Amino acid sequence: MAIQEGDFVRLNFTGKIKETDEVFDTTSEDIAKEADILVEDKVYGPIPIIVGGNHLLKAIDNAIIGTEAGEAIHVSVNPENGFGQRNPNLIQLIPMKEFKKQGMAPVRGMKITSDNGTGKIISVDGGRVKVDFNHELAGKNLEYDVSVVEVIDEDEEKIKSMIELHYSYPNMDLDKTEIKIDGDKVSIKLDEITRFDQKSYMDVTFARFRISKDIWDNMGYEKVEFVDEFEKKVEEDPEGESEE
Amino acid sequence: MAIQEGDFVRLNFTGKIKETDEVFDTTSEDIAKEADILVEDKVYGPIPIIVGGNHLLKAIDNAIIGTEAGEAIHVSVNPENGFGQRNPNLIQLIPMKEFKKQGMAPVRGMKITSDNGTGKIISVDGGRVKVDFNHELAGKNLEYDVSVVEVIDEDEEKIKSMIELHYSYPNMDLDKTEIKIDGDKVSIKLDEITRFDQKSYMDVTFARFRISKDIWDNMGYEKVEFVDEFEKKVEEDPEGESEE
Repeated sequence: MAIQEGDFVRLNFTGKIKETDEVFDTTSEDIAKEADILVEDKVYGPIPIIVGGNHLLKAIDNAIIGTEAGEAIHVSVNPENGFGQRNPNLIQLIPMKEFKKQGMAPVRGMKITSDNGTGKIISVDGGRVKVDFNHELAGKNLEYDVSVVEVIDEDEEKIKSMIELHYSYPNMDLDKTEIKIDGDKVSIKLDEITRFDQKSYMDVTFARFRISKDIWDNMGYEKVEFVDEFEKKVEEDPEGESEE
Repeated sequence: MAIQEGDFVRLNFTGKIKETDEVFDTTSEDIAKEADILVEDKVYGPIPIIVGGNHLLKAIDNAIIGTEAGEAIHVSVNPENGFGQRNPNLIQLIPMKEFKKQGMAPVRGMKITSDNGTGKIISVDGGRVKVDFNHELAGKNLEYDVSVVEVIDEDEEKIKSMIELHYSYPNMDLDKTEIKIDGDKVSIKLDEITRFDQKSYMDVTFARFRISKDIWDNMGYEKVEFVDEFEKKVEEDPEGESEE
């Protein structure tokens, strides 16, 4: 069946810059290795998204709609539909002394973060450092190869896919997620290991909000609750010795 | 009615060192001010505890049992029933160079933390620093004035009192805590502001575990769950203009 807006899918993609054929992002570990952009600890493989759910560029969502799972899709994205045109005002000259104040030695290619966002040093010339705060893909024509590998049908699997997309915790087992649906309410108990997350409670709340919003907006449920249950442990006879 | 083991109460107390009459801890802001031990941002006033719940020294729990709310109780605690005898092996000589390595200038009275716990510098003599890792109240005879101001009867209030004891968050409103009891399960929804806690999720889990354990052990419920609910917000007409 043709893929529609609102479908939950898993897909592979690889994005290249048209002009240079340079791969800037991919779900494939092999392609990442080949392009020398492998990210340590990143889990490669198909990612779950909602078609039209603002998880990808709109141009990619639009290209997927109407295709079938398994079809190889090619999408060309111009700067307007991608990451915008380059803005010359976002190239700034920063006095060398500002870097020295912070104990930094600026070098060409170095990335820095300031109130203006993240920028890349494009030249160091005597006392002045030129930094480009444009998005690295601004002004570029992009080429994406996309392939939907699966359309997710079951509500439980849809919910798990959004947990996978928005909340990561090392060694979390999604199969240990308990999901109960009762009327307009979804109740989620995550794998107990996630209780030991060292991220702030607030950061976890933001991830939960994103999961909840995708569920409200695309599955019709009005309430999403996250439950941590603490159950009294019965003192166990460690070796079953009382049986003797 | 006389106070029994397992009762949830609120009490005021002030603890003094017998030998010196020095106040080391109190629930009274006035007494703390007078003794010059006022802690910034600490909320003073009666604290909730469970009698026999290991929240206070056992000697104090025992003294409370059988008294009536409102009675002034005086408890003398010797070192064995208090913070133990002083252990001379916990006084250690540390070479000055260990402090220098860490950029510290040791001064008499300064508190330091090491693998041995927290210690207090008792002398600095040339190249050697003498640090006492004994508990500050070890070896002391203590005198406590205690007064139970309230026995908590209602289950909901008991649960709220344990939240108050084990979990603090600035501006949290305990009156916004929703508690539902269903059979052997207690379900707790905290004030929504606590979702923005910047402590780690793990630290919040430990507090929740302590709350749950006190509920299991003293109220007979087997399960305690903490629920964060995210509800779809209906887009509101900001000024009610559609009414016009």
